[in-house]
Amino acid sequence: MDVPSADAVCCFRPIGRIHSCFKEKFGIPRQSGLIPEAEATLELLSPFDRDEAVRGLEGFSHLWVLFLFHAQDAPGWRPTVRPPRLGGNRRIGVFASRSPFRPNPIGLSAVRLAGIVREPRRLLLQLQGVDILDGTPVLDIKPYVPYADRIPDAHGGFAETPPGAPLSVQYAPPATAFLASLSGGEAGRLCALVERILVQDPRPAYLDGARAQRQFGMRLFDYEVRWYRDATGAVVTRIALSSPVRRG
Amino acid sequence: MDVPSADAVCCFRPIGRIHSCFKEKFGIPRQSGLIPEAEATLELLSPFDRDEAVRGLEGFSHLWVLFLFHAQDAPGWRPTVRPPRLGGNRRIGVFASRSPFRPNPIGLSAVRLAGIVREPRRLLLQLQGVDILDGTPVLDIKPYVPYADRIPDAHGGFAETPPGAPLSVQYAPPATAFLASLSGGEAGRLCALVERILVQDPRPAYLDGARAQRQFGMRLFDYEVRWYRDATGAVVTRIALSSPVRRG
Repeated sequence: MDVPSADAVCCFRPIGRIHSCFKEKFGIPRQSGLIPEAEATLELLSPFDRDEAVRGLEGFSHLWVLFLFHAQDAPGWRPTVRPPRLGGNRRIGVFASRSPFRPNPIGLSAVRLAGIVREPRRLLLQLQGVDILDGTPVLDIKPYVPYADRIPDAHGGFAETPPGAPLSVQYAPPATAFLASLSGGEAGRLCALVERILVQDPRPAYLDGARAQRQFGMRLFDYEVRWYRDATGAVVTRIALSSPVRRG
Repeated sequence: MDVPSADAVCCFRPIGRIHSCFKEKFGIPRQSGLIPEAEATLELLSPFDRDEAVRGLEGFSHLWVLFLFHAQDAPGWRPTVRPPRLGGNRRIGVFASRSPFRPNPIGLSAVRLAGIVREPRRLLLQLQGVDILDGTPVLDIKPYVPYADRIPDAHGGFAETPPGAPLSVQYAPPATAFLASLSGGEAGRLCALVERILVQDPRPAYLDGARAQRQFGMRLFDYEVRWYRDATGAVVTRIALSSPVRRG
C-alpha cells in the first residue's frame, strides 16, 4: 500500500466546469443556498462525462460541489482574513472563515440539483442556489447526505444568521424600459435574481451604512446591471446587454 | 488576472494531519457524526500552525475537514461504485456516492470541534465524530456555517437514514478480563467506541445477515479488538494491546 507522507503535494484534475449566472465576482452571494434564483450548469468534462458516473444522483435533492477558487488577483494566503460579515475591519483566522484566499483554494458549496441533462456531446447538471463564478473548475461532486451533513445542534461563531435584511428595490425608467424589451419570462427571472442579490448588500463591507450614492455595476447572465444604495433601499438605474463576455 | 483553463491540473499541499482512533480502515463509520466517541486530533503543519490562522474558530461547534483519501490499495477510479448501503451488489455512479475511490480522492467530513490546544511546538484541534483514518493528510478546514450548510428540505437518495439498528454487544471472558486490567476511564471509553462501531455493522455488505460466526478484528487506539456477529448481536471475544503501531 502506497501511503504518501502527510506533507507530500497532491495534484488534481478538474472533473467539470461551471457555467454560472455570475460573470464576475462582485454580486456573488456570500454562501450557497442564499439565492435560489442563482443558477448554474455544471458541465462534466471528459472522461468524467459518462452517464454511469452520475447514476443515482437524481435521487438526491442537493449536492456538494468542491471547486477551485481560480480567479484570484493575488495568489497566496495570509493567516488572517477580514470577512465582510464583521464589517471588513476585524481579522479572524483563515481557517475560521470561508474566504477564497486560503492555503489550498478549494471552495465548498451545497447547491440544489434541479436536473441532469444529457446532450449529444455534453452531460450537464442543472444547479440552483449557487455562489460560484462562471468558468470555475470543479474538483468533485458528492451527494448531500442529510443524516450526516445536516447537524441539528451546530452553532456558528460570527456567522450565525444569514446576511441581509428586507429592503426595497426600485427601478429607474431606463432600467424599466430595458426590462420591458425582454421577452418570455426573462425580465422576471432577471429581476428576481437582482433583487435577491441587492437584499444581501454585495457592497464592500467598509461601505456598509454609507449613504454615498456610489454607483455599482455587476454582470449577471448576459446583462450589465447598474445600481446604487441609499438609506432605504437600492435603486437599479440601468440594465443593458453586457459587452461580449467570455462564455465559461 | 491569471485564470487557468478548467482542465489544468492543480496541486495542493497538506495543511495538517489526522491522529485518529481508527488505525485501519475496517471499523471506520460510513459517515462523520455517527459515532460521537470517535475522536481524533488534527495537527496543523508548518507554516499553517500559527495561532492567528485559527483565531475565531473556537466560536464554531463544528468544522468541515477536507482531506485526502490516502490509503487506497487500488489507485484510480471507476464510473460506478457499489456502496455498502445498497448491499454491496448494486452499482451507482461515483458522483452519487461518498466512496473514497473517486477521480479526485478528496474526503469531506463534518466533525465536532471539542477544543483547540496550543502545545509548545504543536497546534492541535480536538475533533469528535470523525470517520477519518489515522495519518490522513488534511487539505483544508472550514467552519460549519449552519444557515448555509444545514439544509432543512434536503432529501437523500439511497442514504436517507443512518445505518445501524439496536443490537446487543456482549463480551466473552478474555475480553472482560482485559478490560478489567485497564485503569482510569479507559475501559469505558474503549467499550463505548466498540459498541457504537458494532451497532453500525462494519462487516462487508455482502455478509449482511450472514450467520457464519466469522471472526473480525479491528485496531482502535492502541488495541486490537476481535469479535463476531451472530443472529442477535455481536460478541467481543478478545481485546489486547495491538502490536506496535506506526503512530500517525
